[in-house]
Amino acid sequence: MIRFECDYAEGAHPQIMQAMMETNMEQNPGYSTDEHCQRAREYIRRACQAPDAAVEFLVGGTQANVTVISACLKPYQGALCAASGHINVHETGAMEAYGYKALTLESPDGKITAEQVEKAWEDHIHNASHEHMVQPGMVYISWPTECGTLYSKKELTAISQVCRKIGLKLFVDGARCGYGLAAPGNDVTLKDLAELTDVFYIGGTKVGALFGEAVVITNLEIQKDFRYYIKQHGGMLAKGRLLGIQFETLFKENLYGQIAQHAIDLAMQIREAFVKCGVPFLFDSVTNQQFPILTAEQKEEFEKKYAFELWEEVDKEHFAVRFCTSWATREENVKALTEDIIRICG
Amino acid sequence: MIRFECDYAEGAHPQIMQAMMETNMEQNPGYSTDEHCQRAREYIRRACQAPDAAVEFLVGGTQANVTVISACLKPYQGALCAASGHINVHETGAMEAYGYKALTLESPDGKITAEQVEKAWEDHIHNASHEHMVQPGMVYISWPTECGTLYSKKELTAISQVCRKIGLKLFVDGARCGYGLAAPGNDVTLKDLAELTDVFYIGGTKVGALFGEAVVITNLEIQKDFRYYIKQHGGMLAKGRLLGIQFETLFKENLYGQIAQHAIDLAMQIREAFVKCGVPFLFDSVTNQQFPILTAEQKEEFEKKYAFELWEEVDKEHFAVRFCTSWATREENVKALTEDIIRICG
Amino acid sequence: MIRFECDYAEGAHPQIMQAMMETNMEQNPGYSTDEHCQRAREYIRRACQAPDAAVEFLVGGTQANVTVISACLKPYQGALCAASGHINVHETGAMEAYGYKALTLESPDGKITAEQVEKAWEDHIHNASHEHMVQPGMVYISWPTECGTLYSKKELTAISQVCRKIGLKLFVDGARCGYGLAAPGNDVTLKDLAELTDVFYIGGTKVGALFGEAVVITNLEIQKDFRYYIKQHGGMLAKGRLLGIQFETLFKENLYGQIAQHAIDLAMQIREAFVKCGVPFLFDSVTNQQFPILTAEQKEEFEKKYAFELWEEVDKEHFAVRFCTSWATREENVKALTEDIIRICG
Amino acid sequence: MIRFECDYAEGAHPQIMQAMMETNMEQNPGYSTDEHCQRAREYIRRACQAPDAAVEFLVGGTQANVTVISACLKPYQGALCAASGHINVHETGAMEAYGYKALTLESPDGKITAEQVEKAWEDHIHNASHEHMVQPGMVYISWPTECGTLYSKKELTAISQVCRKIGLKLFVDGARCGYGLAAPGNDVTLKDLAELTDVFYIGGTKVGALFGEAVVITNLEIQKDFRYYIKQHGGMLAKGRLLGIQFETLFKENLYGQIAQHAIDLAMQIREAFVKCGVPFLFDSVTNQQFPILTAEQKEEFEKKYAFELWEEVDKEHFAVRFCTSWATREENVKALTEDIIRICG
Repeated sequence: MIRFECDYAEGAHPQIMQAMMETNMEQNPGYSTDEHCQRAREYIRRACQAPDAAVEFLVGGTQANVTVISACLKPYQGALCAASGHINVHETGAMEAYGYKALTLESPDGKITAEQVEKAWEDHIHNASHEHMVQPGMVYISWPTECGTLYSKKELTAISQVCRKIGLKLFVDGARCGYGLAAPGNDVTLKDLAELTDVFYIGGTKVGALFGEAVVITNLEIQKDFRYYIKQHGGMLAKGRLLGIQFETLFKENLYGQIAQHAIDLAMQIREAFVKCGVPFLFDSVTNQQFPILTAEQKEEFEKKYAFELWEEVDKEHFAVRFCTSWATREENVKALTEDIIRICG
Repeated sequence: MIRFECDYAEGAHPQIMQAMMETNMEQNPGYSTDEHCQRAREYIRRACQAPDAAVEFLVGGTQANVTVISACLKPYQGALCAASGHINVHETGAMEAYGYKALTLESPDGKITAEQVEKAWEDHIHNASHEHMVQPGMVYISWPTECGTLYSKKELTAISQVCRKIGLKLFVDGARCGYGLAAPGNDVTLKDLAELTDVFYIGGTKVGALFGEAVVITNLEIQKDFRYYIKQHGGMLAKGRLLGIQFETLFKENLYGQIAQHAIDLAMQIREAFVKCGVPFLFDSVTNQQFPILTAEQKEEFEKKYAFELWEEVDKEHFAVRFCTSWATREENVKALTEDIIRICG
Repeated sequence: MIRFECDYAEGAHPQIMQAMMETNMEQNPGYSTDEHCQRAREYIRRACQAPDAAVEFLVGGTQANVTVISACLKPYQGALCAASGHINVHETGAMEAYGYKALTLESPDGKITAEQVEKAWEDHIHNASHEHMVQPGMVYISWPTECGTLYSKKELTAISQVCRKIGLKLFVDGARCGYGLAAPGNDVTLKDLAELTDVFYIGGTKVGALFGEAVVITNLEIQKDFRYYIKQHGGMLAKGRLLGIQFETLFKENLYGQIAQHAIDLAMQIREAFVKCGVPFLFDSVTNQQFPILTAEQKEEFEKKYAFELWEEVDKEHFAVRFCTSWATREENVKALTEDIIRICG
Repeated sequence: MIRFECDYAEGAHPQIMQAMMETNMEQNPGYSTDEHCQRAREYIRRACQAPDAAVEFLVGGTQANVTVISACLKPYQGALCAASGHINVHETGAMEAYGYKALTLESPDGKITAEQVEKAWEDHIHNASHEHMVQPGMVYISWPTECGTLYSKKELTAISQVCRKIGLKLFVDGARCGYGLAAPGNDVTLKDLAELTDVFYIGGTKVGALFGEAVVITNLEIQKDFRYYIKQHGGMLAKGRLLGIQFETLFKENLYGQIAQHAIDLAMQIREAFVKCGVPFLFDSVTNQQFPILTAEQKEEFEKKYAFELWEEVDKEHFAVRFCTSWATREENVKALTEDIIRICG
């Protein structure tokens, strides 16, 4: 079985494993106050060209999302997000468990628009009963989205401007951030993300680390006492060095960018093979997740040799599925897959 | 200005005021442990033909909803409800503030179906990632709905059966319960509500009381320690007698039913006048809230003499508005209104 | 049985009942946006000499406490309070249910000191692990305390100064505020409370109203969006006029002060009778709650004729009990009691 | 500088690092559904002689505590614990953030007794206002305690019996569980912990792992849907295999016991050296944390060569400090320390 079902099936990139081995017997202070974390913070600030940003490390995405949301919102406020947003769908109500409502906006492809954000705010504030309703307090977007799609710099800038005009905080969930940066046609940089948002995170778990997300905070209000939030949310790793070592390795010399590029190159080969065969896609993804819509027959044929994820039953005869690549995907496996695409769907 | 904008513009029914005056200097123990509350409980159990039900009194609807929801759900569970449900829209995230997610179902008229409930459960439980999602734990419906519509006994029974099959608790928000019972064509009784639900409440605030909602709990699990929930939620009124006296007055000899009938009779006169003129409605309401869709001109004309609520801008030229009746609505005012409907819309 | 067990056994002062009767058929907008509430706000601002204060009305004390606390604290902060404070002991964890920890300070008589507050802050901030601990964010005190004791103006000022130096918010729970104002030797005014605190409330439930607490907010940060908090906490009374009418009546011409004075005068008669007989007290209360320590025999003798509350078993032979007076206490009953004190304990 | 300040200064035991290297390129399903986790679960069930226990893995102690507490309590319940308990002191209010109150019991040495638990319950249930107070719902104890002390089997059994009689759940925080098992004089086994508690955890972070705590659940009610709690609390590690691999290594052939024994043997050498010199201890610890009380002069002398933690200023001239050993502590360093103890304190 050749596996394409997710981007976290393996451990970590070998350079990370090596760094962890080499530093294993070092004695470090706990809770991400060590030198590895300090260096990792510096590398990330440099990569973002954000010398005043606070950088904090969390273990996983749900933890990062809910910790940031808690630091952004007042109790009576909620987070505007796409209905398909990870916080609304796939976190077992983690944000609600801390008291915050997801204020969902419809979206066919996982993206929301500056216009939707502005309208939601206007609708709220002009409603005579607005005190009886949850007030929008922030905007949550995923970049790339859960559908593999990307906001352009223009789209992000428009959302950012609306947020600043209204007074909403803007948070970008970058669990797969690396794959967005490497995507063909992408014009957004880490510097843009740092400038346009109040807070965003650079995902490690899905881009080569064993685990870890680096939260980059430019908004001073969110920076304040952020580490209290981390501890309260159970996210203060005792051996915080582990997070430092991983991000140090990823950002010292742009290993992060290289491994994401590898994944994107292979994802594009898969994409092109499906395109060539006229297979339609559920979402027009330019990142490491591809969502072709297969017939029942095609799906069955692929299943003999490949592992991938069933995403959605489009109708009784058609199934949207997901093929993922990652830093660990091997070229020969993609070669085999693309040949089989031609054979099965061609 | 003749006022039809809501059903809580006046104080309380004169019989309630008189009872409060007469008992004012009595000395009673606090926190609804007094004899008025005991008697009110008995009258309500009798009206529901539910001798083993627990009956507890809360001050208002949001408080009642969130207290009941807390007693029904585990932290990782949510409440299935219509997207237009009061808990989802008009309680400033009260349930989320206690940690619970509203799991919304689409509905054009404020009602949801047994099929929707069953499908939501099936979708959850068959999802490979279901542990990553909020588990449905209860169903919340309003009877009448926020749109003035009513579930029939057959519809309620179907929802109840699905809930019992699956293991979901069923909660009916009866803030306007009296108006439902009195509605033309209604075939649901308090006994039915007690039998078909795990817990429901009989609204006082909008049906003649100064304030107060009587929560009727048949499910033993929800009964257990329910008063702790009331106190924790700030709902344990020191002078609980006030709730007892009001519901005692309403249910001793069916004053509740009589005043609701009065409101319904007048609402139907308004409805018929609009129907006669061919004015369309936003919702097909058989209760004390009527939602005609007026042209801009008609709306302006009515506004000269009447207060009513703007509900929704249907398009630039058409506005859905709400006219409410209550126990306090005067017949001569309805006569004036119906004549004006004929004049303006006829 | 002559009853002295609490200060909320009766309904409301007759003037309040009369006002509610007279206004019953008025049509008012809901949610405390009516003219009664507006006037009551004005009267209270005048009484506090705080023209810029926001005044909001809540139904009961637990609700008022938890709503204010939510508006004061960030999620990782807690409220410093006496271990005997109402929020720590008698609210079924209402503040914890919204996520906030009570940070208790020891106190023999229900009062805490400026020194305790400052030390708690210093201990926190100098602790190397302070991010692992709940940060003090506010001080909660009761005035009068649950023990009937009072802070002097000097003591309150000291606490206020420490809070402002450190950056903690100061909240005074004035559930029995009226009785404090009327107490012999008291030198604190409503103006002082408004000036020295960020927010406090004037209790109605225990001082002559059917229910209701008037929250006076001078801190602009807490004023902001406070009504969202009220609604979220289930405290937005539909017929908010009821709160307005009651506080309007109490503060139009200082009925509040008069009825509190009545209660205090009678409480002092009871106190002096016990003092004269050499009966010790659990707390040195100058307000409407008196806590004599009776022998088992004395207690039994009183129980034949009077209702009062057992407060604490001091030892097998001695019992601290509580006698309360209120606006409704009758002079002849106090006369009977004082005579019996002399007879039984003399 | 020779470091004794905590038990998590290094990475992981070399065998764990080796296992992580060897399995790095394996493809595993996520979220602890992989074979390493399955095997680790089996090894732990075997070590506990608890074939029906559920075993779930969490990343850290605060996360484990709050997840378990959420699964044990109803919203109006709290956890009885020593005032010095980790959940009360060092988790930034994590449990309160989810709505649960810590109900503290006084303890000079970090241990509480069956009598204290029973009395707390009796006091609650016999209080006339018990509905106004947080109901005890569980007992939380640390084994070893934060003071290094241990409950004997007899003490644990007594607490367990009281809990079962009353209906409280018993949860043991075993963050340093390994050091308790290896302590001289200890008569408690993993089997005992599994039998006497409803749920406990075996700490990895402080006993040789990079991170990770293995929660062992024997109570069926807590087992149910426990993984929803994990996800909601941000504790569902994507590459859950990492937890499986570590606990697999620790429990396959009792590496866990061996490394704990190493730490204990060295801690006892340190302890004996202080005892020999007549140095008093803050707590009578038999585990890997030792708390001698040093004079200012002695402390200063040690600080020239050793890192250790200041625990408490006993008085101006005396300081309780903490020396920790771990799996990674080197014998030659302990030899140097014990010689210096004799030199400085002898």
